[in-house]
Amino acid sequence: MTLVQEHKQFALGIDIGGTNTKYGLVNQRGEVLLKGKIKTKGYPDVKDFIEVLYQTISPEVEKMSKESNFVGIGVGAPNGNYYNGTIEDATNLEWKGVIPFTDYMSEKFGVPCRITNDANAAALGEMMYGAARGMKDFIMITLGTGVGSGIVCNGSLVYGSDGFAGELGHTIVKPNGRKHWNTGSEGSLEAYASATGITITAKKLRAEFPDSMLNDYPEDEINAKTVHDCCLKGDPIAIEVFRYTGQKLGEALANFVMFSSPEAILLFGGVIKAGDFIMEPTKLHMERNLLPIFRGKVKLIFSELDEADAAILGASAMVWV
Amino acid sequence: MTLVQEHKQFALGIDIGGTNTKYGLVNQRGEVLLKGKIKTKGYPDVKDFIEVLYQTISPEVEKMSKESNFVGIGVGAPNGNYYNGTIEDATNLEWKGVIPFTDYMSEKFGVPCRITNDANAAALGEMMYGAARGMKDFIMITLGTGVGSGIVCNGSLVYGSDGFAGELGHTIVKPNGRKHWNTGSEGSLEAYASATGITITAKKLRAEFPDSMLNDYPEDEINAKTVHDCCLKGDPIAIEVFRYTGQKLGEALANFVMFSSPEAILLFGGVIKAGDFIMEPTKLHMERNLLPIFRGKVKLIFSELDEADAAILGASAMVWV
Repeated sequence: MTLVQEHKQFALGIDIGGTNTKYGLVNQRGEVLLKGKIKTKGYPDVKDFIEVLYQTISPEVEKMSKESNFVGIGVGAPNGNYYNGTIEDATNLEWKGVIPFTDYMSEKFGVPCRITNDANAAALGEMMYGAARGMKDFIMITLGTGVGSGIVCNGSLVYGSDGFAGELGHTIVKPNGRKHWNTGSEGSLEAYASATGITITAKKLRAEFPDSMLNDYPEDEINAKTVHDCCLKGDPIAIEVFRYTGQKLGEALANFVMFSSPEAILLFGGVIKAGDFIMEPTKLHMERNLLPIFRGKVKLIFSELDEADAAILGASAMVWV
Repeated sequence: MTLVQEHKQFALGIDIGGTNTKYGLVNQRGEVLLKGKIKTKGYPDVKDFIEVLYQTISPEVEKMSKESNFVGIGVGAPNGNYYNGTIEDATNLEWKGVIPFTDYMSEKFGVPCRITNDANAAALGEMMYGAARGMKDFIMITLGTGVGSGIVCNGSLVYGSDGFAGELGHTIVKPNGRKHWNTGSEGSLEAYASATGITITAKKLRAEFPDSMLNDYPEDEINAKTVHDCCLKGDPIAIEVFRYTGQKLGEALANFVMFSSPEAILLFGGVIKAGDFIMEPTKLHMERNLLPIFRGKVKLIFSELDEADAAILGASAMVWV
């Protein structure tokens, strides 16, 4: 029994978001043994951030190391580059330029560290422990404040020539369409299908339709959640907000299917709480825009993992694979 | 010397098009030792087609077998399915339904046979012997009567879950745009950037601009070649035909880059004879629609292989890889 215990291993999975950084100690079976979070903001120097991360986590790592081996760290972060181990020009983080993040982490923690972007980490999590178990070809779309994606072809994440493949939120679904608040591009998927995009659509529609329940809220309370609440009460304008969003998303998904012909597309993130209000129009418009040979083949499903766990699990999975 | 010759090998590469089928005997260095063609049309039963192919090629195979080993056959064909060895519901071939093509071929020729679609075969040819040598991530776009594509990620062709990945010609570049003559979809890349699409654009524009040189030709002589001829003579409307085509193509390419972040995009097929008239606007609109992190990175280049050889070489390459 002692011998078996000596072979036990655990990894540290980290999910760096614009506001919070979540972490978890995970074993090879994908069990999150312990988790916690720290603020991401407030550390203009990334080394200070890593110091706080180390001070917070290392006591737990030490405790666990008594009966299990600490083998490595996996990180999901905006613009995390798998090839270089860097975080590069992430607009929603304070660290500017190209940060050699995995080098700093390995130095501090004394174990190997790998990084990828947050959506890729979530896709890995779904592939190893979630709804995409056993799938060799699938696409994960994360519908949160922004729209991210992780693409798996032939059993591997698609990193592309530079490590930045899978920016599907920035593909154009409507040429000359809605201007994106950050990138300035016109008609990107993110401009419509992110929580931010849904809020914009809702504000436009409630201004056009004074009878809509959406007008019962102050301006700053209009968001994907309040729109969903109005849908549940039967407000046709709120329902139209998600129908329109689903149309744009479905049209985009059809194009993605004709690229990589995935077995499934997984939807993930806060926006999917809208359930069928977004799923049904998305499915309709995806199918409508597909070539006949692809119709009725692609599973469109919601993520199975707890949102907070998916990226931690996926990040830690990079240590094993 | 005799020993070395005994280890020599050759393969048969076949490129099945709607009208003609081209074939070549190819050695491992990618040298086409002999080539020829037969008609594709006129054989409602695929077995009759294979019989004619066999009668035509087997004498040459026998001759060459005296000093080299015949090791296999690779086929590029519309809707050729790599996984199943089938040709499935190819609209521009006479054989309807699902044809177990590689089984028939292996039985007749007595060697293993592999199949994929024609654009994938051309992409393999470029990767092994052409402009994509040494590249692990690239996209090949074939601009002929239709628009096809072959996608290579991480050194391998992307076949997807069902073998039909890479139908980029059917992605929608302009929602509710030009209706496709076959599929009925609205605003697909093929509807604009194929030779057929270019002809439609040219006919529309020459009707709007009576002074255009394009009006010097009878209706049935308007095609990508005559438009190019008018460009060379400085006709601004003919130039606009390719500019508009390049805009639609460039917008589509930007979306593809944000999917798989290729090192290069290779353009291939009859339409590229228009040279800079199509290349410049394509590049401009691709760059304009890219996220900043992708700008100036992706090589946009013309194929290096002779068009007739690319698919034969690529098809034969499936025998070695």
